[in-house]
Amino acid sequence: MKPVHVLNGPNLNRLGTREPHIYGHTSLAQVEAMCREAAGPRGLVFVQTNSEEKLIDAVHAAIDLACGIVINPAALSFTSLALLDALKMVEAPVIEVHISNIHKREPIYHRSYVSMRADAVICGMGAEGYPVAIRYLLCKLAD
Amino acid sequence: MKPVHVLNGPNLNRLGTREPHIYGHTSLAQVEAMCREAAGPRGLVFVQTNSEEKLIDAVHAAIDLACGIVINPAALSFTSLALLDALKMVEAPVIEVHISNIHKREPIYHRSYVSMRADAVICGMGAEGYPVAIRYLLCKLAD
Amino acid sequence: MKPVHVLNGPNLNRLGTREPHIYGHTSLAQVEAMCREAAGPRGLVFVQTNSEEKLIDAVHAAIDLACGIVINPAALSFTSLALLDALKMVEAPVIEVHISNIHKREPIYHRSYVSMRADAVICGMGAEGYPVAIRYLLCKLAD
Amino acid sequence: MKPVHVLNGPNLNRLGTREPHIYGHTSLAQVEAMCREAAGPRGLVFVQTNSEEKLIDAVHAAIDLACGIVINPAALSFTSLALLDALKMVEAPVIEVHISNIHKREPIYHRSYVSMRADAVICGMGAEGYPVAIRYLLCKLAD
Amino acid sequence: MKPVHVLNGPNLNRLGTREPHIYGHTSLAQVEAMCREAAGPRGLVFVQTNSEEKLIDAVHAAIDLACGIVINPAALSFTSLALLDALKMVEAPVIEVHISNIHKREPIYHRSYVSMRADAVICGMGAEGYPVAIRYLLCKLAD
Amino acid sequence: MKPVHVLNGPNLNRLGTREPHIYGHTSLAQVEAMCREAAGPRGLVFVQTNSEEKLIDAVHAAIDLACGIVINPAALSFTSLALLDALKMVEAPVIEVHISNIHKREPIYHRSYVSMRADAVICGMGAEGYPVAIRYLLCKLAD
Amino acid sequence: MKPVHVLNGPNLNRLGTREPHIYGHTSLAQVEAMCREAAGPRGLVFVQTNSEEKLIDAVHAAIDLACGIVINPAALSFTSLALLDALKMVEAPVIEVHISNIHKREPIYHRSYVSMRADAVICGMGAEGYPVAIRYLLCKLAD
Amino acid sequence: MKPVHVLNGPNLNRLGTREPHIYGHTSLAQVEAMCREAAGPRGLVFVQTNSEEKLIDAVHAAIDLACGIVINPAALSFTSLALLDALKMVEAPVIEVHISNIHKREPIYHRSYVSMRADAVICGMGAEGYPVAIRYLLCKLAD
Amino acid sequence: MKPVHVLNGPNLNRLGTREPHIYGHTSLAQVEAMCREAAGPRGLVFVQTNSEEKLIDAVHAAIDLACGIVINPAALSFTSLALLDALKMVEAPVIEVHISNIHKREPIYHRSYVSMRADAVICGMGAEGYPVAIRYLLCKLAD
Amino acid sequence: MKPVHVLNGPNLNRLGTREPHIYGHTSLAQVEAMCREAAGPRGLVFVQTNSEEKLIDAVHAAIDLACGIVINPAALSFTSLALLDALKMVEAPVIEVHISNIHKREPIYHRSYVSMRADAVICGMGAEGYPVAIRYLLCKLAD
Amino acid sequence: MKPVHVLNGPNLNRLGTREPHIYGHTSLAQVEAMCREAAGPRGLVFVQTNSEEKLIDAVHAAIDLACGIVINPAALSFTSLALLDALKMVEAPVIEVHISNIHKREPIYHRSYVSMRADAVICGMGAEGYPVAIRYLLCKLAD
Amino acid sequence: MKPVHVLNGPNLNRLGTREPHIYGHTSLAQVEAMCREAAGPRGLVFVQTNSEEKLIDAVHAAIDLACGIVINPAALSFTSLALLDALKMVEAPVIEVHISNIHKREPIYHRSYVSMRADAVICGMGAEGYPVAIRYLLCKLAD
Repeated sequence: MKPVHVLNGPNLNRLGTREPHIYGHTSLAQVEAMCREAAGPRGLVFVQTNSEEKLIDAVHAAIDLACGIVINPAALSFTSLALLDALKMVEAPVIEVHISNIHKREPIYHRSYVSMRADAVICGMGAEGYPVAIRYLLCKLAD
Repeated sequence: MKPVHVLNGPNLNRLGTREPHIYGHTSLAQVEAMCREAAGPRGLVFVQTNSEEKLIDAVHAAIDLACGIVINPAALSFTSLALLDALKMVEAPVIEVHISNIHKREPIYHRSYVSMRADAVICGMGAEGYPVAIRYLLCKLAD
Repeated sequence: MKPVHVLNGPNLNRLGTREPHIYGHTSLAQVEAMCREAAGPRGLVFVQTNSEEKLIDAVHAAIDLACGIVINPAALSFTSLALLDALKMVEAPVIEVHISNIHKREPIYHRSYVSMRADAVICGMGAEGYPVAIRYLLCKLAD
Repeated sequence: MKPVHVLNGPNLNRLGTREPHIYGHTSLAQVEAMCREAAGPRGLVFVQTNSEEKLIDAVHAAIDLACGIVINPAALSFTSLALLDALKMVEAPVIEVHISNIHKREPIYHRSYVSMRADAVICGMGAEGYPVAIRYLLCKLAD
Repeated sequence: MKPVHVLNGPNLNRLGTREPHIYGHTSLAQVEAMCREAAGPRGLVFVQTNSEEKLIDAVHAAIDLACGIVINPAALSFTSLALLDALKMVEAPVIEVHISNIHKREPIYHRSYVSMRADAVICGMGAEGYPVAIRYLLCKLAD
Repeated sequence: MKPVHVLNGPNLNRLGTREPHIYGHTSLAQVEAMCREAAGPRGLVFVQTNSEEKLIDAVHAAIDLACGIVINPAALSFTSLALLDALKMVEAPVIEVHISNIHKREPIYHRSYVSMRADAVICGMGAEGYPVAIRYLLCKLAD
Repeated sequence: MKPVHVLNGPNLNRLGTREPHIYGHTSLAQVEAMCREAAGPRGLVFVQTNSEEKLIDAVHAAIDLACGIVINPAALSFTSLALLDALKMVEAPVIEVHISNIHKREPIYHRSYVSMRADAVICGMGAEGYPVAIRYLLCKLAD
Repeated sequence: MKPVHVLNGPNLNRLGTREPHIYGHTSLAQVEAMCREAAGPRGLVFVQTNSEEKLIDAVHAAIDLACGIVINPAALSFTSLALLDALKMVEAPVIEVHISNIHKREPIYHRSYVSMRADAVICGMGAEGYPVAIRYLLCKLAD
Repeated sequence: MKPVHVLNGPNLNRLGTREPHIYGHTSLAQVEAMCREAAGPRGLVFVQTNSEEKLIDAVHAAIDLACGIVINPAALSFTSLALLDALKMVEAPVIEVHISNIHKREPIYHRSYVSMRADAVICGMGAEGYPVAIRYLLCKLAD
Repeated sequence: MKPVHVLNGPNLNRLGTREPHIYGHTSLAQVEAMCREAAGPRGLVFVQTNSEEKLIDAVHAAIDLACGIVINPAALSFTSLALLDALKMVEAPVIEVHISNIHKREPIYHRSYVSMRADAVICGMGAEGYPVAIRYLLCKLAD
Repeated sequence: MKPVHVLNGPNLNRLGTREPHIYGHTSLAQVEAMCREAAGPRGLVFVQTNSEEKLIDAVHAAIDLACGIVINPAALSFTSLALLDALKMVEAPVIEVHISNIHKREPIYHRSYVSMRADAVICGMGAEGYPVAIRYLLCKLAD
Repeated sequence: MKPVHVLNGPNLNRLGTREPHIYGHTSLAQVEAMCREAAGPRGLVFVQTNSEEKLIDAVHAAIDLACGIVINPAALSFTSLALLDALKMVEAPVIEVHISNIHKREPIYHRSYVSMRADAVICGMGAEGYPVAIRYLLCKLAD
């Protein structure tokens, strides 16, 4: 039984202190704990990186090892076709999560390339969006 | 304790038979049942209409009567500024739900006006998106 | 043997008196008579409404009851994705009719959403476009 | 001597409580009273509806019955070609009123279709825009 | 009594074998026969050419010799202002025909220059669009 | 008690003879008289200039000396950011007036920079728009 | 001493009868006579064709044989990059002529590809533009 | 017999020394002399100004005093709607002249507002464009 | 065993003398020799034309007679939908060749319609692009 | 040894009182003093005008008299091609200064025409940007 | 004698298993072998990386060490100006290769920044594009 | 007392040899020396990297350790939203520097994302821009 892979893009290592009026006060460590609880016996691989390369590598790794991907690509959502290309290789479910409601922000944050591959997209639920995504993923795998 | 209001826009009365390769086989009655279960003791008001007017009226009604709104505006998401204006009057949480991942469809389905007001947006989870939204709403109200 | 459904959008109830330099002097009652004659023994259901909701309802009704749809959505052609979504559910032939040649008018009248679903489109034939569409529809059903 | 018809679009029934930092604290009933006073012996027909259909019907009614139209189409200004088409049939003067200065708001509120037919446009005068429009209308009829 | 001129643009000489999933299996010779029958005693001039020049020449010829033009400009619809300019000189009725519904195809096939001059436009009726156009033309001449 | 300043942009010195089918037959001297009457005991400063510089200077002068500004910037509405910048310094009410309904004209006349600062905008009322604006201004000051 | 080559694009063979409210009543034969007189002893080659190919061939011929080119490409100005490419090979002066002022017409007639190569452009002088262009060309050659 | 008015916009007082690879070596005084010769007994009014206001004033003056206007608005061609509005009041012929071929320059120099009113436009003939315009104007007046 | 068809569009007959800083000094005759050598025993049909019509005809001819097409459509790449439509009928491999790297030129040369059908595209290899294309084509046929 | 010319566009005469949250509290007289100190023995010519014409004249004057130009064109940066054209004639260094960071403001303030000629651009340094520009200019002249 | 450097961007390490309907079944190891054979005695440096940084470093390394570069930047083609900037420093030939015909894919894959520097571009030849590029490079070096 | 952090993006390690006609002949080591001198007793941290990840990390580091940031993001200015997001977390002053005047280059270099956060922007001062930025930063800190 493969674990859930939760992948996080640039600047999310500063979560909790980063522009809290937009992103809230939950730290990434707390997000990881929430995810671990949601994943339960499935188990969790939790990655955060500021590097497009390492995020792509993490997607490649997930191809063989994950039952599904929950990904918050942060700013790379809007600029990285290479990440989109990596995700196109994945056959397992891919759930995209954004902490803030990106559609209420400036236009440069409106059109996520990653959404062109994601099975589902959640935005605006704050840190809670992660466990929501994991629970949905597990429920979908159980179908 | 006010109930959750779940509002549905045009063509969703045909859910289950409508383009099932996009929208799945769950009927709207089944969606309502899923929502009722998710709302639990809070209780549920469940509306579907093909009319922009009636959807606006339902939003107006929710201003006083609902603890929060889960709304799937369907095609009106992309064309009705009047619906957006109605939702701007709401102070309770508003969660927008789309059954399909609208970002994978034609460009005319990419930019939802309603997302400019929604607190959170879920798309691509199929019928499951409704109870996910309600549970998130209840959990947010409990904060 | 199911009848032909002829559906008309907003302002067409004023046909004959409405901007006759664009739309001609034939009244909608005369159009209905022309249609009834063209439909012959097939029979005709003829609807006009200024309401997007009622036009959607009429499309829904036609799904089970019509051998085909002839639709002049008038201004809703250019603004109603909900109408397009309703028509996408129809399996019978759909013929779109415009009384004037919309491509000679202002740009806001150039791109009909409904044309993205219609099997055939006729514009600029005046009231005559209706029976032309019905005859084509019957001839296509006879194939 | 025909009365003035004052037509109001969606969400204006909530005037006074609706986003008062934008639309002010005057209620629609107060607006109606202001209009009635301004119309004087001419008399007033005052309509508000959240429905595009009913607004179109009201325009049709005004064709025979009104000495002129003062219309605040609210959000339909920016989305309803059917309303524009209805107004194109009117020969009497048409004055468009917006409570807020729409040109200071988001771009989606900048381009009113109705302005393509209106004889005059007033925006940003708050509720006072209505009697100003009526007085201008009467003064124009008196020419 | 002048004949109907039916003018066909590039690649239509391959009709029947050309991408039959789009254009159908009727050959151009069959189309000509259908047209001849529809034209009846009026008579028919039937032209097909892959050359913009020759199509312009055929339009020039029709100015003096035709009672009306039915034209399927094929790809030249979307690229030839010279063809549009030629048609602007024609006083007789001009009916534009497209075999497929061009509005369902890629955007480069959506905006026909020729429609800026045509009196009526038919698309999506397959080969049947030709006799429909001719019959409409004759009926219009008979008015 | 400070007077109302009425500021007029380029070409308005030719009012009455300038394209009267658009701008009417009232001369600027007549407009000034209408304004003076409307301003009543408040008093009036009336300026017309073809110069962007002098119009900016007039705005600067109004900052200290005017109870409010009524401005018809004419063509400068659409091209002068310097005028907009000057008006941004004004704390008193600013009412923008256009004699014709600019939204019915070519697109280059649709988007007024000045409207980004104006409190209210009137267009299409002909010369009558000036006293309407002044009366509204006085009424607003009286609040 | 090489002659002047005057090249004319599609539909100009109908000059004088073609939309005379735009193009005037002078025939192409009269234009040729005017040109011949203007060219004087230099001599004239005068070409008109409805074919892009033949116009390109005429440009190729002019490379070796002409002292300069006066060209009215008509509608090909706006659509033919192949013509532009041909003219880029020409080292002699190229004067572009349009009978009407193309900048007053629809936007599709505003941007001439040929102007990207032409040394000078004349539009709106009617048939008189031709001899004006030739006289300028001769005067430039005489420098 | 009214004289020709030749109006010149900003920076043309530096002609001859201003970017001579674009504008040539002829000075404005030489241009004036060339114009005076071309105008002959008609006489000439020759104006150059760096001011939009003064150019507008010069157009106003020409309305009563000139048989026609030859105008090189320089950079104001592309930015001054006020100048366009002034020229719209002129009933006499207006010929627009540009020394360089503006269509070969950066896109910001491609679309002249003034061309929307001009009867004829000449560009790329260098200083020679002025007398060419005057001779054409006189010849047109002689018709 | 069918030969390779090499098709060349407008102005390529001037290759070697045409803007050699862009297109090089190799003549079309030399290109043909290079192609003949590359095609070897397969044999070669080599066509050049300045005519869209003849290029379409050559594509039609190739449908039955060629093992594959190497095409340099020159400027028609960017303007001819009729050529694209012709190529869509071809089932054999189509290789598009441009002598220069079109992506380094003006934007009007960036988007080739023909590339929407071509199997492979080569640009910027100068005349050498032709034999490279033929060798690739033969190698692909040999698979 | 020529002095530095510091040129200021419209509304800068109100510096210090003009929207101080954007432009700060330093007055233009203080800016001039700062500039004079920075210019040192070189000497300073300091100009402010609300007039495009006078700013162009000041640029012309600087051509012969200045060792370099420091220019804050204010709103004219974004609208005046005539100013750009004037600056293109200058051979001495041109440094553009904006008090606020224009790139953080509305899009209409993002693209300065003057930057197309300036050697260097400084924005967002407040009044300090002026002496910074002068010191850089002197240092560059000393190279 | 410097070797050929072949540089590969993100996701190409998955070649052969990655979306084989688009990219084929050849693995990157096989591509390297094909390249090594094509490079012959020249020798080969073969790099693949998912990192923009390392690809830039590889370009920097090639400046001194490579006789030329064959580069398949994959998704970075469309998003990395930093890669373009690195390639602008290279004086040796640069050949860009894409395995698929990018012009047949979604618009986000149409405009490669790298093509603005590349000498030649090959796309759609599958893995064969690499040795084709190398052979062309060697042949060009041999000139 | 925290030091100044000077951060440099991709390709700047090649400064001095990289396209010296654009970027000058000063090497990055020389820039560093200039910066160290300008920073004086404050001290300097000087970073250059071709990696978006490492530049983001350097911004994160600066949050706690720097008195201010001087950043030349090079090409990442125009493509990296992740860098912008990192800079949005910084409370200390951020000065953006570009060696060349980016506004004179191709449009892809015109709109820096980083400028949406920077306090001040300097471009076109060559290597001198760095010490100018540092001196301004120190002076601002001293306020």
